[in-house]
Amino acid sequence: MNVGDRHYRTIWLAEDGRSVEIIDQRWLPHEFRVVPLSTVDEVATAIRDMWVRGAPLIGVTAAYGVAMAMKDDASDEALEAVWHKLHETRPTAINLRWALDEMTRVLKPVPVAERADAAYARAAEIADEDVALNRAIGEHGLTLIRQIAASKKPGEKVNILTHCNAGWLATVDYGTATAPIYLAVEEGIPVHVYVDETRPRNQGAQLTAWEMAGHGVPHTLVVDNAGGHLMQHGQVDMVIVGTDRTTANGDVCNKIGTYLKALAARDNGIPFYVALPSPTIDWTVKDGVAEIPIEERSGDEVSLVWGRTASGEVVQVRISPDATQAANPAFDVTPARLVTGLITERGVAEASAEGLRRLFPA
Amino acid sequence: MNVGDRHYRTIWLAEDGRSVEIIDQRWLPHEFRVVPLSTVDEVATAIRDMWVRGAPLIGVTAAYGVAMAMKDDASDEALEAVWHKLHETRPTAINLRWALDEMTRVLKPVPVAERADAAYARAAEIADEDVALNRAIGEHGLTLIRQIAASKKPGEKVNILTHCNAGWLATVDYGTATAPIYLAVEEGIPVHVYVDETRPRNQGAQLTAWEMAGHGVPHTLVVDNAGGHLMQHGQVDMVIVGTDRTTANGDVCNKIGTYLKALAARDNGIPFYVALPSPTIDWTVKDGVAEIPIEERSGDEVSLVWGRTASGEVVQVRISPDATQAANPAFDVTPARLVTGLITERGVAEASAEGLRRLFPA
Repeated sequence: MNVGDRHYRTIWLAEDGRSVEIIDQRWLPHEFRVVPLSTVDEVATAIRDMWVRGAPLIGVTAAYGVAMAMKDDASDEALEAVWHKLHETRPTAINLRWALDEMTRVLKPVPVAERADAAYARAAEIADEDVALNRAIGEHGLTLIRQIAASKKPGEKVNILTHCNAGWLATVDYGTATAPIYLAVEEGIPVHVYVDETRPRNQGAQLTAWEMAGHGVPHTLVVDNAGGHLMQHGQVDMVIVGTDRTTANGDVCNKIGTYLKALAARDNGIPFYVALPSPTIDWTVKDGVAEIPIEERSGDEVSLVWGRTASGEVVQVRISPDATQAANPAFDVTPARLVTGLITERGVAEASAEGLRRLFPA
Repeated sequence: MNVGDRHYRTIWLAEDGRSVEIIDQRWLPHEFRVVPLSTVDEVATAIRDMWVRGAPLIGVTAAYGVAMAMKDDASDEALEAVWHKLHETRPTAINLRWALDEMTRVLKPVPVAERADAAYARAAEIADEDVALNRAIGEHGLTLIRQIAASKKPGEKVNILTHCNAGWLATVDYGTATAPIYLAVEEGIPVHVYVDETRPRNQGAQLTAWEMAGHGVPHTLVVDNAGGHLMQHGQVDMVIVGTDRTTANGDVCNKIGTYLKALAARDNGIPFYVALPSPTIDWTVKDGVAEIPIEERSGDEVSLVWGRTASGEVVQVRISPDATQAANPAFDVTPARLVTGLITERGVAEASAEGLRRLFPA
């Protein structure tokens, strides 16, 4: 999407046709830095140290990393070596593994001399496929926004609340939860976005707010505590969030705090939607609360907050006593009963086993 | 309560019998600073600039401020002047006004020559009355904790979640929501407290966590987003929060985010209690959501976070883009239907008009 006057993706081929350029997301929202990645080592660092984040973007970055390896040595051994080198950068990232497997699958039958070109071609396709997928999610979500806009007085804004960053920065473009919003803006529907800060890592305050500001989408930052109050007072028309994993029954695992917003939406009769590409549906899991293990991250993410001082330095500050330990569950599960609909690339599914299977037959 | 090995109140008469000493709460949790207040001007500054905060503590501080004025000039004019001087430091603080009115009521009939002594005596009484009130709330809340402890295996902890700071730092001692917890500790019941960070001002991370650490109460800091997940997984036995204002029907106005925790407690069958001194019941208001105006504070409280750098400096850092505005509603209203009980100094009331009137007949 746009950063001011110019359109960007999160990753693109550089002019040399062999390197890529990315947005180094560690510095957002304080600095917008574009950096080139020219070697597998640089790609590995960018993934490991979270210069890029978001499952789809990590996958595409890794695909280009494989292409860079092939450029220097396209042997079977080199192909296997780059798989391992990149896989270990974020060993639990499903999409990373998928991209590495997919590149291997495509390249194995190709003659060694042609592998580099084939690899760059497939990496570019994977990037384009992600954009198309998100655009399709956006179109289906747009229908829902249009319906709400139609019930409003002319010029009245549709107020959408979102949690965390399921935006274009987590994908190649459009994002998942944000795709319907960007398409609504494109269509001229007046929207306003309440951006949840999303403690402890502040992805809302740092990334979603930056996306909205860059693309010129009217938005307001609020603390995670505020959503219930806003809903009680008619200031939210719909909620759209992303998800890391959706169960076969429609339970939604997403950033910690999502469940609380779903409860508030239900209590106030406000529709609660989840936007997701179908590959994130985990058909092997039914009961999300009982079955999905929740990652427990370092308590330092709670106790230490990143930000920019008045003098422009980006530093970490401690907000709690040294003697106090923090717990930091990273995700929670919103039961399907609280989800109004799942916005997928094939349409909006009811959050249930039947609803999902209607759109995605086994 | 204790700060390490020593017991403190938040305000006490100094050795000279004419000044008071307070904890300058602006520096918590990073520095524990005790400062003397010897003049009305110093008292006014301490209230205005929030060296002291919390309705009961503000009231007591103001009462001592009146006494300091009487020491220098105990005329009717001086009494009226100090009322105005202190009232304008926090003009919307109900308890401040109550304390100034009370001091005036008591001192007016007293001969001018005896007013200073009478003022110090009444200020000390108001402080002691607050301690007794909180202790009574604590005793009634303790009964509830005892019941939960009785259903646990020996040695198993009672897990209590609290939001914001309704602790001893907001009162003279014990606090309201924390009083049952401190009495449970006194009685040897094993408790563990989940402390909500309480964005945007972080009163949980800064004050409640510091109280718990100082008194040696086992506790864990969590982001406001985490409570729902903890409750889904049986890690919370009860919620106890404070309140700024309770309606005649039992609706509870408290720090923003309280409503979300009440929804999660209800969804998981966990008791949700509110601790309150009866003077904070507003008998003129019934429907809290419809009738209570919610203070909208500066968005800077959301965008700028206070904390201590690695080098020990206490600074503010910006966490969001410069182009992003923030909204900052300071309170929300939890409807009575989500409240298991109101812990008052007279006992635990059902959160309803009838429940409150049974304990507090008109």
